[in-house]
Amino acid sequence: MSLLTVGTVAFDQIETPLGKAEKIVGGAATYISLAASYFNKDINLVSVVGDDFPNTELEYMKSRGIKLEGLQIKEGEKSFFWAGRYHDNMNKRDTLDTQLNVLADFDPVLPDSYKNSEFLMLGNLTPDVQMRVIEQMEHPPKLIAMDTMNFWMDIAMDRLKEVIAKIDVLIINDEEARQLSGDYSLVTAAATIMNMGPKYLIIKKGEHGALLFHDQDIFFAPALPLAEVFDPTGAGDTFAGGFMGYISQSGDISFENMKRGVIFGSAMASFCVEKFGIEKLKGLTNADIKNRVSRFVQLVNFDAQL
Amino acid sequence: MSLLTVGTVAFDQIETPLGKAEKIVGGAATYISLAASYFNKDINLVSVVGDDFPNTELEYMKSRGIKLEGLQIKEGEKSFFWAGRYHDNMNKRDTLDTQLNVLADFDPVLPDSYKNSEFLMLGNLTPDVQMRVIEQMEHPPKLIAMDTMNFWMDIAMDRLKEVIAKIDVLIINDEEARQLSGDYSLVTAAATIMNMGPKYLIIKKGEHGALLFHDQDIFFAPALPLAEVFDPTGAGDTFAGGFMGYISQSGDISFENMKRGVIFGSAMASFCVEKFGIEKLKGLTNADIKNRVSRFVQLVNFDAQL
Repeated sequence: MSLLTVGTVAFDQIETPLGKAEKIVGGAATYISLAASYFNKDINLVSVVGDDFPNTELEYMKSRGIKLEGLQIKEGEKSFFWAGRYHDNMNKRDTLDTQLNVLADFDPVLPDSYKNSEFLMLGNLTPDVQMRVIEQMEHPPKLIAMDTMNFWMDIAMDRLKEVIAKIDVLIINDEEARQLSGDYSLVTAAATIMNMGPKYLIIKKGEHGALLFHDQDIFFAPALPLAEVFDPTGAGDTFAGGFMGYISQSGDISFENMKRGVIFGSAMASFCVEKFGIEKLKGLTNADIKNRVSRFVQLVNFDAQL
Repeated sequence: MSLLTVGTVAFDQIETPLGKAEKIVGGAATYISLAASYFNKDINLVSVVGDDFPNTELEYMKSRGIKLEGLQIKEGEKSFFWAGRYHDNMNKRDTLDTQLNVLADFDPVLPDSYKNSEFLMLGNLTPDVQMRVIEQMEHPPKLIAMDTMNFWMDIAMDRLKEVIAKIDVLIINDEEARQLSGDYSLVTAAATIMNMGPKYLIIKKGEHGALLFHDQDIFFAPALPLAEVFDPTGAGDTFAGGFMGYISQSGDISFENMKRGVIFGSAMASFCVEKFGIEKLKGLTNADIKNRVSRFVQLVNFDAQL
């Protein structure tokens, strides 16, 4: 089934203790749609870029089944740009520069062909833009997932909560879950957040894995222990893209299938961090993904003999 | 098979955001042997207390199958005392007071009846005391596990490494693994540490679970997501006690059985933190433990459908 995703398509400049990348392709919707494209070949992207965005990258996305009818290309303007530097242990980063450019007055317009998408993934953007996308859908999607960040909680909490009330799966990290709920315990935070509307909550804990909550059920997916993380940029978006790509391809929104989705999302994220930007997300094979998922199975597999 | 354990039997004073406990029973060997006693009824304890230690507590330990022939009771002296205060999120604590008392010149003497114990768990103590216990064993145990802490890495690294070279399973937390190895990545740290001697390494990550390493194999056990942690004191020792209790009762030191041991140890630790000190570790039933382990199974169980 078709997956509609909205988010940034942009340039990043990234410094990690292992190297530096100048002006490479990034953006939430880029990572989400590329990761999802390994599972679903019917992906509708909504975003905006300037005329500085390389056409070869857009052609590559199209070649992976990502439809760009909803991608606005603004003549004479520049694409969104973010520059950041990671600390030694890769767990923290400083933003060095943010240039909104085309994003400053982004008004997402859904082509008619997008309006009946069965699945919707709202990448991290202003709550207003996320709401505008939901409002343009002709039929309520089978499942709406969204990402957000603490920045919107700081400056637009009320509007953010209006969006959260309309979605099914919220995907945020542990710090964001604590800020949104006001609770320290993630179990308590999850209950508080699910009371705001979403029936499902995924809390990402980076190198410590991810938790999926639904009613009284909790599922935990580990992160793959890696000898080296090269660049964590986009890992969260890649996780979300892998998750929604997997779910939307099957059309199955049972808890059992969401568990698999979380594992496949984690597997995609484990690839993402191995190289700069989207580099590793290009040219994976189905066998690569299967083998990676097998490692997750091995990692947590035990027979309790109860 | 018999399990010999050495470590402190002591008093703790604990402050958490949820309450304060004055001079309650604690100590590594107390937690280790109590947790292990739910699996193995042949436990030999080596430690030292003053004449201030309550006899009722010793009788309780005996009633659980813990032999105290190797427990020295020093007339006219006081038991080891530790006071600490936990920060708001329970992840950090400050030591307020440490009174070594009887521990200052503790010389562990193994009764003859202990010297053929098949399993040995060295609780956190000076490396010298840990080495003295190993040296008194008549036959090499089937498996030696040990705990230690960053304090000994700071002041006695060389001696510590001599002990580590003689053991089979090292059980430490993530910060300690990084300090001991000099590596940030836990995967790299594990390889470095296993090169020091131990064939197995368990890295405890508190609320983020635990990793078991052996050769190229990695097993990950989650921590149970809890709505409330009442008192984290002794959780690591309880984990080690549950692990070694489970392994020693079966006598099976295969990797598959160690995985189960890590899960049972995690289950015991999840009980420990629910009340002050050893309170929750008294009066558990086998059904309690089975039910708790079932929750771990549920937590990570998925069918990848590969």
